[in-house]
Amino acid sequence: MIYLDNAATTRTAPEVVEEMLPFFTEKYGNPSGVYGTGREAKEAVTKARDRIAALLGAKSDEVFFTSCGSEADNWAIVSVFEALKEKGCHIITSKIEHHAVLRTCEYLERERGARITYLDVDGDGRVRPEDVEAAITPDTVLVTIMAANNEIGTVQPVREIGEMVHRHGVIFHTDAVQAFGQLPFTVDDWGIDMLSASGHKFNGPKGTGFLYIRKGTPVRAFLHGGAQEHNRRAGTENVPGIVGIGAAAKLAMDSLDEKVRQETELRDYLIREIETKIPNVRLNGSRDGRLPNNVNFSFEFVEGESLLIMLDMKGICVSGGSACSSGSLAPSHVLKAIGLSDSLARGALRMTLSAETTKEEIDTTVAALTELVKKLRNMSPKYEGYLKGIEKSETAE
Amino acid sequence: MIYLDNAATTRTAPEVVEEMLPFFTEKYGNPSGVYGTGREAKEAVTKARDRIAALLGAKSDEVFFTSCGSEADNWAIVSVFEALKEKGCHIITSKIEHHAVLRTCEYLERERGARITYLDVDGDGRVRPEDVEAAITPDTVLVTIMAANNEIGTVQPVREIGEMVHRHGVIFHTDAVQAFGQLPFTVDDWGIDMLSASGHKFNGPKGTGFLYIRKGTPVRAFLHGGAQEHNRRAGTENVPGIVGIGAAAKLAMDSLDEKVRQETELRDYLIREIETKIPNVRLNGSRDGRLPNNVNFSFEFVEGESLLIMLDMKGICVSGGSACSSGSLAPSHVLKAIGLSDSLARGALRMTLSAETTKEEIDTTVAALTELVKKLRNMSPKYEGYLKGIEKSETAE
Repeated sequence: MIYLDNAATTRTAPEVVEEMLPFFTEKYGNPSGVYGTGREAKEAVTKARDRIAALLGAKSDEVFFTSCGSEADNWAIVSVFEALKEKGCHIITSKIEHHAVLRTCEYLERERGARITYLDVDGDGRVRPEDVEAAITPDTVLVTIMAANNEIGTVQPVREIGEMVHRHGVIFHTDAVQAFGQLPFTVDDWGIDMLSASGHKFNGPKGTGFLYIRKGTPVRAFLHGGAQEHNRRAGTENVPGIVGIGAAAKLAMDSLDEKVRQETELRDYLIREIETKIPNVRLNGSRDGRLPNNVNFSFEFVEGESLLIMLDMKGICVSGGSACSSGSLAPSHVLKAIGLSDSLARGALRMTLSAETTKEEIDTTVAALTELVKKLRNMSPKYEGYLKGIEKSETAE
Repeated sequence: MIYLDNAATTRTAPEVVEEMLPFFTEKYGNPSGVYGTGREAKEAVTKARDRIAALLGAKSDEVFFTSCGSEADNWAIVSVFEALKEKGCHIITSKIEHHAVLRTCEYLERERGARITYLDVDGDGRVRPEDVEAAITPDTVLVTIMAANNEIGTVQPVREIGEMVHRHGVIFHTDAVQAFGQLPFTVDDWGIDMLSASGHKFNGPKGTGFLYIRKGTPVRAFLHGGAQEHNRRAGTENVPGIVGIGAAAKLAMDSLDEKVRQETELRDYLIREIETKIPNVRLNGSRDGRLPNNVNFSFEFVEGESLLIMLDMKGICVSGGSACSSGSLAPSHVLKAIGLSDSLARGALRMTLSAETTKEEIDTTVAALTELVKKLRNMSPKYEGYLKGIEKSETAE
């Protein structure tokens, strides 16, 4: 198997599983228990929180564990809206956010009286800071712009946006689900008030995430009930999961420079190879300002879905867009927002690498792609028409 | 270690961990991926859903995975409120619900315009079905009454309440976090529309839970975003966790009769021993209508907290009340609701057994309790006063 869908999910690192294991069957206490095994569990949760706080340049009590990145996004947006409803009901976001942000904004708009501005992006999928600034009104309570896009990998000018949003006294949230573990940053660097991340995107376990909340940010609890997570997120702590996300975060950050170097090199090699070997392709997203592990191409005259299935038959795992919106037949909202036609959007393929991806895997993938794209195009009446068009114009010359 | 806090959390069964393990490092695909490892993950999630549905006597697409019981409670209550706000804003619950229910109701009351009736209970902690019926008004949209109490183990007349609530055309939700895996039932038996459960309470992993939603119940999504869980709960599925809760549910139900028999026998033995060997104690909750694994006593003239700490020094893990409200110094809302004085409420100790608990462990615990209660009482001025009172009245005779 060649696994090139690391933006959808990653393999949990064996050393992460190793750290988690004792907390299932041995140190299985409830962290709220005052006795030995409860204290052990509580210490493990604290250690994970400290680890992540250190990696973010944050304080330990600014890190709140959640069950996934989507929960962190939902929590951040709904709770700022609730906390600041006396001040205003306007939220600014972009058209290419993850659905966890977009659908939450739509919910607040539909059900709770929020007013949402969905900003356009440029052809690379970049949000323009000046557009954010122009959209701020006296009743703006939150700006939520992702750190890097999950489909096309475009890295946003987070620092610039963060600084400017702060000058206006507005809270800034960023969905860093794709960025955490792929880009070096601290929350102070980037001027972030709230940040969402997801464990299984950086070799941690599924079912884990965290929300960073800068001290002083007026937010509410999302899950009501027990006093866990400083009274902000009820429910018995997922101790093995929290231990896992803590271990994975440390692992990702310890090897970040090396990982970024490796991935970037392979990414650029993959892009070059595709552009050299396959005609009529379009790189989606920014050529330079993209995640080290993200490649997204549209193959003209080809359905991404068919390509996907044929690649799977060769044991190569890639994705048509984001995993979260699979099942939907509508073309990707991200690709539409950067100006792709429906047909180009449907011809898109995302390949996302990991530090374990090898050059040989890339070569095999490119060879398979070259063959399959050719095969699919030969079956396409549109491609036939296109070729006839070229022939005609060549004859005319 | 003698572990008698199984209502707080349980040891994940080794065979459950075994089933989970491949989904961390081998079959780690995202269930939304169309390729092989994604399909494997999806099939595993489906299998777990089928297992739980079968145990509940429900359909597979009526089971929705969550990250914990508290999330299931929050979701059930908030989403019925949102879905039916045109019909009314009245919710009926009881004073002894878990905080995940109470705090969610309080949130809806404080922030969203809900009207909540908090019903009294009798001295055993039993909700009277006639009180529920009397509280129903034309704008009642939801009745939420737990199946069994987490502190005192009292089992509620769920079937009676369910039937009657349905006659009135109102939705019935039950928090079965303590009951699932301890009591035999099906959702049809009990007339349940929605039911919350939590994996780590029945030897499944922490960070897992489910909400049963009867087909046709008007509810909304709780986490907005991706299309997971039939569009109702966004976020990449916690595949290993879901496999784990499925395996644990099957395990619990397969051995339910035997487990209930064993636990009930030991429970009654523990109650008898305490009542025989320690004077001035009070069994909290119903003597007969209680969970097979729950024992809750108040020891007069003793602080539960001190007893707890001294038992821990002997390697015995018990709890003062519910684990979720630890850290709070206020006496338990459940014990107050059944009429205990503050001082008796503070003298309470909960011991919750598992199928693995042995008679020897019970004997050791009773011996320790007898010794420690005596020691603590000898240090108590109130107890001294009480003894003098007895002496005086005996002399007077």
